[in-house]
Amino acid sequence: MTITLYELTGRDDRRFSPYCWRTRMALAHKGLDYETVPVRFTDKDQIAFSGQKRVPVLRDGDTVVSDSWTIACYLEDTYTDTPSLFGCAAGRGLARFLNAWTDGTLHAALIRLVLADILEHVDPADRDYFIESRSARFGSPPEAVQTRSDADLARFAAAVGTLRTALDGQPFLCGDAPAYGDYIVFGAFAWARAISDFKLLETDDPVYLWRDRLLGLFGGMPRQARGYDV
Amino acid sequence: MTITLYELTGRDDRRFSPYCWRTRMALAHKGLDYETVPVRFTDKDQIAFSGQKRVPVLRDGDTVVSDSWTIACYLEDTYTDTPSLFGCAAGRGLARFLNAWTDGTLHAALIRLVLADILEHVDPADRDYFIESRSARFGSPPEAVQTRSDADLARFAAAVGTLRTALDGQPFLCGDAPAYGDYIVFGAFAWARAISDFKLLETDDPVYLWRDRLLGLFGGMPRQARGYDV
Repeated sequence: MTITLYELTGRDDRRFSPYCWRTRMALAHKGLDYETVPVRFTDKDQIAFSGQKRVPVLRDGDTVVSDSWTIACYLEDTYTDTPSLFGCAAGRGLARFLNAWTDGTLHAALIRLVLADILEHVDPADRDYFIESRSARFGSPPEAVQTRSDADLARFAAAVGTLRTALDGQPFLCGDAPAYGDYIVFGAFAWARAISDFKLLETDDPVYLWRDRLLGLFGGMPRQARGYDV
Repeated sequence: MTITLYELTGRDDRRFSPYCWRTRMALAHKGLDYETVPVRFTDKDQIAFSGQKRVPVLRDGDTVVSDSWTIACYLEDTYTDTPSLFGCAAGRGLARFLNAWTDGTLHAALIRLVLADILEHVDPADRDYFIESRSARFGSPPEAVQTRSDADLARFAAAVGTLRTALDGQPFLCGDAPAYGDYIVFGAFAWARAISDFKLLETDDPVYLWRDRLLGLFGGMPRQARGYDV
Protein backbone atom coordinates (compact mmCIF):
# COMPACT_ATOMS: atom_id res chain seq x y z
CA MET A 1 0.00 0.00 0.00
CA THR A 2 1.46 3.32 -1.02
CA ILE A 3 1.38 6.50 1.02
CA THR A 4 0.87 9.68 -0.99
CA LEU A 5 1.64 13.15 0.33
CA TYR A 6 -0.02 16.07 -1.43
CA GLU A 7 2.13 19.11 -0.79
CA LEU A 8 2.29 22.75 -1.83
CA THR A 9 4.67 23.54 -4.65
CA GLY A 10 5.83 26.68 -6.37
CA ARG A 11 7.94 27.30 -9.46
CA ASP A 12 10.94 25.05 -10.04
CA ASP A 13 9.72 22.50 -7.53
CA ARG A 14 10.07 24.87 -4.56
CA ARG A 15 8.37 23.32 -1.50
CA PHE A 16 7.64 26.17 0.84
CA SER A 17 4.74 25.08 3.03
CA PRO A 18 5.93 24.77 6.66
CA TYR A 19 3.05 22.39 7.38
CA CYS A 20 3.94 20.09 4.48
CA TRP A 21 7.52 20.06 5.74
CA ARG A 22 6.33 18.81 9.13
CA THR A 23 4.66 15.85 7.42
CA ARG A 24 7.60 15.22 5.08
CA MET A 25 9.96 15.04 8.06
CA ALA A 26 7.53 12.86 10.03
CA LEU A 27 7.33 10.34 7.18
CA ALA A 28 11.13 10.26 6.90
CA HIS A 29 11.51 9.89 10.69
CA LYS A 30 9.26 6.84 10.58
CA GLY A 31 11.11 5.45 7.58
CA LEU A 32 7.91 5.18 5.55
CA ASP A 33 8.01 5.13 1.77
CA TYR A 34 5.80 7.69 0.11
CA GLU A 35 5.18 9.53 -3.11
CA THR A 36 4.59 13.23 -3.24
CA VAL A 37 2.10 14.96 -5.45
CA PRO A 38 2.85 18.64 -5.97
CA VAL A 39 -0.17 20.91 -5.57
CA ARG A 40 -0.29 24.53 -6.65
CA PHE A 41 -2.37 27.13 -4.81
CA THR A 42 -4.93 27.29 -7.63
CA ASP A 43 -4.95 23.61 -8.31
CA LYS A 44 -6.84 22.47 -5.24
CA ASP A 45 -9.13 20.23 -7.26
CA GLN A 46 -6.38 17.67 -6.78
CA ILE A 47 -7.24 17.40 -3.10
CA ALA A 48 -11.02 17.79 -3.38
CA PHE A 49 -11.30 14.12 -2.31
CA SER A 50 -10.09 15.18 1.15
CA GLY A 51 -13.20 17.30 1.72
CA GLN A 52 -11.20 20.46 2.40
CA LYS A 53 -8.79 22.79 0.63
CA ARG A 54 -5.53 22.78 2.54
CA VAL A 55 -2.35 20.80 2.20
CA PRO A 56 -0.78 18.64 3.49
CA VAL A 57 -3.13 15.81 2.69
CA LEU A 58 -2.03 12.24 3.25
CA ARG A 59 -3.60 9.30 1.46
CA ASP A 60 -2.71 5.94 2.92
CA GLY A 61 -4.63 3.24 1.10
CA ASP A 62 -8.27 4.04 1.77
CA THR A 63 -7.47 6.45 4.57
CA VAL A 64 -7.32 10.20 3.90
CA VAL A 65 -5.98 12.54 6.57
CA SER A 66 -5.50 16.29 6.43
CA ASP A 67 -3.94 18.83 8.83
CA SER A 68 -0.29 18.33 9.76
CA TRP A 69 -0.95 17.69 13.47
CA THR A 70 -3.69 15.15 12.74
CA ILE A 71 -1.41 13.46 10.20
CA ALA A 72 1.43 13.21 12.75
CA CYS A 73 -0.92 11.61 15.28
CA TYR A 74 -2.26 9.25 12.60
CA LEU A 75 1.25 8.13 11.64
CA GLU A 76 2.25 7.72 15.29
CA ASP A 77 -0.81 5.67 16.19
CA THR A 78 -0.84 3.60 12.99
CA TYR A 79 2.84 2.78 12.48
CA THR A 80 3.67 1.79 16.05
CA ASP A 81 6.63 -0.40 15.03
CA THR A 82 8.53 2.56 13.57
CA PRO A 83 10.52 5.22 15.50
CA SER A 84 8.24 7.34 17.68
CA LEU A 85 7.49 10.94 16.74
CA PHE A 86 6.60 11.95 20.29
CA GLY A 87 8.38 9.49 22.61
CA CYS A 88 5.57 9.35 25.16
CA ALA A 89 2.24 10.91 26.10
CA ALA A 90 3.88 13.92 27.75
CA GLY A 91 6.07 14.34 24.69
CA ARG A 92 2.97 14.44 22.49
CA GLY A 93 1.23 16.89 24.81
CA LEU A 94 4.19 19.28 24.82
CA ALA A 95 4.67 18.95 21.06
CA ARG A 96 1.13 20.33 20.84
CA PHE A 97 2.26 23.39 22.80
CA LEU A 98 5.22 23.83 20.45
CA ASN A 99 2.81 23.50 17.51
CA ALA A 100 0.67 26.31 18.94
CA TRP A 101 3.70 28.53 19.58
CA THR A 102 5.17 27.94 16.13
CA ASP A 103 1.90 28.71 14.34
CA GLY A 104 1.07 31.77 16.44
CA THR A 105 4.44 33.28 17.28
CA LEU A 106 7.26 32.04 15.05
CA HIS A 107 5.28 32.06 11.80
CA ALA A 108 3.70 35.42 12.61
CA ALA A 109 7.19 36.88 13.08
CA LEU A 110 8.65 35.18 10.00
CA ILE A 111 5.89 36.41 7.69
CA ARG A 112 7.14 39.98 8.18
CA LEU A 113 10.57 38.95 6.90
CA VAL A 114 9.90 36.70 3.92
CA LEU A 115 6.25 36.86 2.77
CA ALA A 116 6.83 38.90 -0.37
CA ASP A 117 9.78 36.70 -1.38
CA ILE A 118 7.26 33.92 -1.95
CA LEU A 119 5.92 35.97 -4.86
CA GLU A 120 9.08 35.36 -6.87
CA HIS A 121 8.72 31.63 -6.44
CA VAL A 122 5.07 30.81 -6.92
CA ASP A 123 3.94 29.38 -10.22
CA PRO A 124 2.93 32.24 -12.57
CA ALA A 125 -0.61 30.85 -12.56
CA ASP A 126 -0.75 31.27 -8.76
CA ARG A 127 0.56 34.81 -8.58
CA ASP A 128 -2.74 36.70 -8.58
CA TYR A 129 -4.30 34.22 -6.17
CA PHE A 130 -1.37 34.59 -3.78
CA ILE A 131 -1.49 38.39 -3.81
CA GLU A 132 -5.26 38.51 -3.34
CA SER A 133 -5.51 35.85 -0.63
CA ARG A 134 -2.60 37.26 1.41
CA SER A 135 -3.81 40.83 1.01
CA ALA A 136 -7.16 39.73 2.40
CA ARG A 137 -5.58 37.78 5.27
CA PHE A 138 -3.06 40.40 6.38
CA GLY A 139 -4.87 43.55 5.35
CA SER A 140 -2.03 44.62 3.04
CA PRO A 141 -0.32 43.26 -0.07
CA PRO A 142 2.72 41.01 0.56
CA GLU A 143 5.25 43.78 -0.16
CA ALA A 144 3.67 45.91 2.57
CA VAL A 145 3.64 43.02 5.05
CA GLN A 146 7.30 42.18 4.47
CA THR A 147 8.66 45.40 5.94
CA ARG A 148 11.65 43.97 7.81
CA SER A 149 11.37 46.92 10.18
CA ASP A 150 13.37 47.06 13.39
CA ALA A 151 10.24 45.98 15.26
CA ASP A 152 9.80 43.03 12.89
CA LEU A 153 13.42 41.98 13.33
CA ALA A 154 13.13 42.32 17.11
CA ARG A 155 10.00 40.18 17.13
CA PHE A 156 11.71 37.43 15.16
CA ALA A 157 14.81 37.71 17.34
CA ALA A 158 12.66 37.22 20.44
CA ALA A 159 11.21 34.00 19.03
CA VAL A 160 14.67 32.78 18.05
CA GLY A 161 15.84 33.69 21.56
CA THR A 162 13.32 31.28 23.05
CA LEU A 163 14.63 28.53 20.76
CA ARG A 164 18.22 29.40 21.66
CA THR A 165 17.54 29.12 25.36
CA ALA A 166 15.79 25.79 24.86
CA LEU A 167 18.77 24.48 22.85
CA ASP A 168 21.28 25.46 25.54
CA GLY A 169 22.57 22.08 26.69
CA GLN A 170 20.82 19.86 24.14
CA PRO A 171 21.39 19.42 20.38
CA PHE A 172 17.69 19.11 19.50
CA LEU A 173 14.50 20.61 20.86
CA CYS A 174 13.46 17.06 21.74
CA GLY A 175 16.74 16.39 23.57
CA ASP A 176 19.57 14.20 22.34
CA ALA A 177 17.70 13.03 19.23
CA PRO A 178 15.35 14.83 16.86
CA ALA A 179 11.63 14.13 16.93
CA TYR A 180 8.39 15.76 15.83
CA GLY A 181 8.87 18.84 18.01
CA ASP A 182 12.00 19.63 16.03
CA TYR A 183 10.17 19.13 12.73
CA ILE A 184 7.40 21.53 13.74
CA VAL A 185 9.89 24.36 14.17
CA PHE A 186 12.09 23.24 11.30
CA GLY A 187 9.12 23.66 8.96
CA ALA A 188 9.34 27.42 9.46
CA PHE A 189 13.01 27.53 8.50
CA ALA A 190 12.51 25.13 5.58
CA TRP A 191 9.77 27.43 4.28
CA ALA A 192 12.07 30.48 4.47
CA ARG A 193 14.99 28.59 2.93
CA ALA A 194 12.88 27.52 -0.05
CA ILE A 195 11.95 31.01 -1.17
CA SER A 196 14.14 33.69 0.44
CA ASP A 197 17.81 34.62 0.48
CA PHE A 198 17.26 36.83 3.55
CA LYS A 199 19.74 35.79 6.23
CA LEU A 200 17.66 34.90 9.30
CA LEU A 201 20.45 33.52 11.51
CA GLU A 202 24.15 34.13 11.99
CA THR A 203 26.21 31.05 11.25
CA ASP A 204 27.48 30.81 14.83
CA ASP A 205 23.99 30.98 16.32
CA PRO A 206 23.06 27.74 18.13
CA VAL A 207 19.73 27.91 16.30
CA TYR A 208 21.57 28.00 12.95
CA LEU A 209 23.62 25.00 14.06
CA TRP A 210 20.44 23.18 15.09
CA ARG A 211 18.87 24.00 11.70
CA ASP A 212 22.00 22.67 10.03
CA ARG A 213 21.69 19.40 11.94
CA LEU A 214 18.08 19.13 10.75
CA LEU A 215 19.07 19.83 7.13
CA GLY A 216 21.47 16.88 7.32
CA LEU A 217 18.93 14.32 8.53
CA PHE A 218 17.60 11.43 6.45
CA GLY A 219 20.57 11.32 4.14
CA GLY A 220 20.42 15.06 3.60
CA MET A 221 16.89 15.00 2.11
CA PRO A 222 15.98 18.45 3.53
CA ARG A 223 19.19 20.03 2.22
CA GLN A 224 18.65 18.54 -1.22
CA ALA A 225 15.33 20.35 -1.52
CA ARG A 226 15.62 23.43 -3.70
CA GLY A 227 16.37 26.52 -1.62
CA TYR A 228 18.81 29.24 -0.64
CA ASP A 229 21.75 28.24 1.49
CA VAL A 230 21.98 31.31 3.67
CA MET B 1 16.92 11.11 54.83
CA THR B 2 14.91 14.30 54.70
CA ILE B 3 14.50 16.56 51.71
CA THR B 4 14.42 20.26 52.50
CA LEU B 5 13.12 22.90 50.11
CA TYR B 6 14.21 26.47 50.72
CA GLU B 7 11.61 28.73 49.16
CA LEU B 8 10.82 32.40 48.91
CA THR B 9 8.26 33.71 51.37
CA GLY B 10 6.52 37.00 51.97
CA ARG B 11 4.27 38.26 54.73
CA ASP B 12 1.66 35.85 56.11
CA ASP B 13 3.38 32.87 54.58
CA ARG B 14 2.72 33.99 50.99
CA ARG B 15 4.75 31.81 48.62
CA PHE B 16 5.05 33.77 45.42
CA SER B 17 8.15 32.50 43.63
CA PRO B 18 7.13 30.79 40.38
CA TYR B 19 10.39 28.84 40.41
CA CYS B 20 9.82 27.53 43.93
CA TRP B 21 6.33 26.47 42.87
CA ARG B 22 7.81 24.37 40.08
CA THR B 23 9.90 22.50 42.63
CA ARG B 24 7.05 22.20 45.12
CA MET B 25 4.83 20.63 42.46
CA ALA B 26 7.65 18.36 41.28
CA LEU B 27 8.19 17.03 44.80
CA ALA B 28 4.45 16.41 45.21
CA HIS B 29 4.25 14.71 41.79
CA LYS B 30 6.97 12.32 42.85
CA GLY B 31 5.30 11.73 46.21
CA LEU B 32 8.43 12.71 48.10
CA ASP B 33 8.25 13.93 51.69
CA TYR B 34 9.94 17.23 52.29
CA GLU B 35 10.15 20.10 54.68
CA THR B 36 10.08 23.69 53.53
CA VAL B 37 12.21 26.46 54.96
CA PRO B 38 10.83 29.92 54.23
CA VAL B 39 13.44 32.38 52.99
CA ARG B 40 12.92 36.11 52.77
CA PHE B 41 14.59 38.26 50.11
CA THR B 42 17.01 39.79 52.62
CA ASP B 43 17.64 36.60 54.49
CA LYS B 44 19.76 34.82 51.93
CA ASP B 45 22.33 33.83 54.55
CA GLN B 46 20.07 30.84 55.03
CA ILE B 47 21.06 29.50 51.62
CA ALA B 48 24.71 30.58 51.64
CA PHE B 49 25.63 26.87 51.88
CA SER B 50 24.36 26.48 48.28
CA GLY B 51 27.10 28.76 46.97
CA GLN B 52 24.62 31.12 45.31
CA LYS B 53 21.80 33.47 46.26
CA ARG B 54 18.65 32.26 44.54
CA VAL B 55 15.84 30.01 45.64
CA PRO B 56 14.68 27.33 45.20
CA VAL B 57 17.44 25.36 46.86
CA LEU B 58 16.98 21.69 47.56
CA ARG B 59 18.95 19.86 50.22
CA ASP B 60 18.70 16.09 50.00
CA GLY B 61 20.99 14.52 52.57
CA ASP B 62 24.45 15.65 51.56
CA THR B 63 23.34 16.80 48.13
CA VAL B 64 22.56 20.46 47.50
CA VAL B 65 20.92 21.50 44.23
CA SER B 66 19.80 24.95 43.10
CA ASP B 67 17.91 26.21 40.03
CA SER B 68 14.44 24.82 39.44
CA TRP B 69 15.30 23.09 36.15
CA THR B 70 18.39 21.45 37.63
CA ILE B 71 16.36 20.37 40.64
CA ALA B 72 13.67 18.80 38.42
CA CYS B 73 16.34 16.84 36.51
CA TYR B 74 17.97 15.80 39.79
CA LEU B 75 14.68 14.49 41.18
CA GLU B 76 13.86 12.71 37.90
CA ASP B 77 17.26 11.03 37.68
CA THR B 78 17.54 10.19 41.38
CA TYR B 79 14.04 9.00 42.22
CA THR B 80 13.49 6.74 39.24
CA ASP B 81 10.92 4.57 41.01
CA THR B 82 8.49 7.45 41.44
CA PRO B 83 6.15 8.94 38.80
CA SER B 84 8.10 10.55 35.98
CA LEU B 85 8.20 14.33 35.62
CA PHE B 86 9.01 14.21 31.91
CA GLY B 87 7.75 10.85 30.63
CA CYS B 88 10.62 10.31 28.19
CA ALA B 89 13.67 12.00 26.67
CA ALA B 90 11.58 13.96 24.14
CA GLY B 91 9.27 15.03 26.97
CA ARG B 92 12.25 16.38 28.89
CA GLY B 93 13.60 18.16 25.83
CA LEU B 94 10.29 19.86 25.09
CA ALA B 95 9.77 20.75 28.77
CA ARG B 96 13.00 22.70 28.41
CA PHE B 97 11.44 24.67 25.56
CA LEU B 98 8.39 25.39 27.71
CA ASN B 99 10.73 26.46 30.51
CA ALA B 100 12.41 28.95 28.15
CA TRP B 101 9.06 30.28 26.89
CA THR B 102 7.63 30.66 30.38
CA ASP B 103 10.67 32.53 31.69
CA GLY B 104 11.03 34.78 28.67
CA THR B 105 7.48 35.33 27.47
CA LEU B 106 4.84 34.47 30.07
CA HIS B 107 6.70 35.92 33.06
CA ALA B 108 7.71 39.01 31.11
CA ALA B 109 4.04 39.63 30.30
CA LEU B 110 2.81 38.86 33.80
CA ILE B 111 5.25 41.23 35.48
CA ARG B 112 3.43 44.17 33.84
CA LEU B 113 0.19 43.07 35.49
CA VAL B 114 1.14 42.11 39.05
CA LEU B 115 4.67 43.25 39.95
CA ALA B 116 3.67 46.10 42.25
CA ASP B 117 1.11 43.92 44.02
CA ILE B 118 4.04 41.94 45.42
CA LEU B 119 4.94 45.07 47.42
CA GLU B 120 1.88 44.63 49.62
CA HIS B 121 2.87 41.11 50.46
CA VAL B 122 6.58 41.13 51.07
CA ASP B 123 7.84 41.10 54.61
CA PRO B 124 8.28 44.71 55.81
CA ALA B 125 12.00 44.02 56.19
CA ASP B 126 12.19 43.14 52.47
CA ARG B 127 10.29 46.14 51.14
CA ASP B 128 13.24 48.44 50.41
CA TYR B 129 15.25 45.60 48.93
CA PHE B 130 12.39 44.64 46.64
CA ILE B 131 11.87 48.18 45.38
CA GLU B 132 15.58 48.76 44.78
CA SER B 133 16.34 45.43 43.14
CA ARG B 134 13.31 45.55 40.83
CA SER B 135 13.87 49.19 39.96
CA ALA B 136 17.40 48.27 38.93
CA ARG B 137 16.25 45.22 36.95
CA PHE B 138 13.37 46.86 35.10
CA GLY B 139 14.59 50.44 34.94
CA SER B 140 11.54 51.73 36.82
CA PRO B 141 10.00 51.24 40.26
CA PRO B 142 7.39 48.44 40.52
CA GLU B 143 4.41 50.82 40.33
CA ALA B 144 5.71 52.14 37.00
CA VAL B 145 6.28 48.64 35.65
CA GLN B 146 2.81 47.44 36.59
CA THR B 147 0.96 49.70 34.18
CA ARG B 148 -1.68 47.24 32.98
CA SER B 149 -1.83 49.22 29.75
CA ASP B 150 -3.74 47.93 26.74
CA ALA B 151 -0.43 46.82 25.25
CA ASP B 152 0.43 44.96 28.47
CA LEU B 153 -2.94 43.23 28.52
CA ALA B 154 -2.61 42.31 24.84
CA ARG B 155 0.84 40.86 25.45
CA PHE B 156 -0.44 38.69 28.29
CA ALA B 157 -3.49 37.69 26.23
CA ALA B 158 -1.19 36.54 23.41
CA ALA B 159 0.73 34.29 25.79
CA VAL B 160 -2.51 32.91 27.23
CA GLY B 161 -3.71 32.37 23.65
CA THR B 162 -0.77 30.05 22.98
CA LEU B 163 -1.65 28.06 26.11
CA ARG B 164 -5.33 27.96 25.09
CA THR B 165 -4.50 26.55 21.66
CA ALA B 166 -2.23 23.93 23.22
CA LEU B 167 -5.00 22.91 25.64
CA ASP B 168 -7.56 22.48 22.87
CA GLY B 169 -8.23 18.75 22.96
CA GLN B 170 -6.20 17.86 26.04
CA PRO B 171 -6.81 18.62 29.75
CA PHE B 172 -3.14 19.25 30.57
CA LEU B 173 -0.20 20.71 28.70
CA CYS B 174 1.44 17.29 29.04
CA GLY B 175 -1.63 15.52 27.65
CA ASP B 176 -4.08 13.43 29.63
CA ALA B 177 -2.15 13.70 32.88
CA PRO B 178 -0.19 16.56 34.44
CA ALA B 179 3.60 16.51 34.51
CA TYR B 180 6.47 18.94 34.88
CA GLY B 181 5.56 20.98 31.79
CA ASP B 182 2.28 21.86 33.49
CA TYR B 183 4.07 22.81 36.70
CA ILE B 184 6.44 25.16 34.85
CA VAL B 185 3.51 27.21 33.57
CA PHE B 186 1.45 26.79 36.72
CA GLY B 187 4.24 28.46 38.69
CA ALA B 188 3.41 31.74 36.95
CA PHE B 189 -0.25 31.54 37.93
CA ALA B 190 0.56 30.39 41.47
CA TRP B 191 2.83 33.43 41.83
CA ALA B 192 0.07 35.80 40.69
CA ARG B 193 -2.53 34.08 42.86
CA ALA B 194 -0.36 34.45 45.97
CA ILE B 195 -0.08 38.22 45.81
CA SER B 196 -2.63 39.79 43.46
CA ASP B 197 -6.40 40.02 43.21
CA PHE B 198 -6.14 41.12 39.56
CA LYS B 199 -8.34 38.84 37.47
CA LEU B 200 -6.05 37.32 34.84
CA LEU B 201 -8.50 34.84 33.31
CA GLU B 202 -12.24 34.62 32.75
CA THR B 203 -13.76 31.67 34.57
CA ASP B 204 -14.88 30.03 31.31
CA ASP B 205 -11.43 30.27 29.74
CA PRO B 206 -9.91 26.81 29.11
CA VAL B 207 -6.72 28.14 30.67
CA TYR B 208 -8.65 29.04 33.84
CA LEU B 209 -10.13 25.54 33.88
CA TRP B 210 -6.65 24.04 33.42
CA ARG B 211 -5.34 26.22 36.28
CA ASP B 212 -8.25 25.03 38.40
CA ARG B 213 -7.32 21.40 37.71
CA LEU B 214 -3.77 22.16 38.80
CA LEU B 215 -4.97 23.85 42.01
CA GLY B 216 -6.83 20.66 42.89
CA LEU B 217 -3.86 18.31 42.53
CA PHE B 218 -2.13 16.56 45.43
CA GLY B 219 -5.11 16.75 47.76
CA GLY B 220 -5.60 20.42 46.98
CA MET B 221 -2.16 21.45 48.28
CA PRO B 222 -1.80 24.32 45.75
CA ARG B 223 -5.25 25.69 46.55
CA GLN B 224 -4.56 25.57 50.27
CA ALA B 225 -1.62 27.91 49.85
CA ARG B 226 -2.48 31.45 50.85
CA GLY B 227 -3.69 33.49 47.88
CA TYR B 228 -6.51 35.26 46.12
CA ASP B 229 -9.19 33.11 44.53
CA VAL B 230 -9.85 35.19 41.46
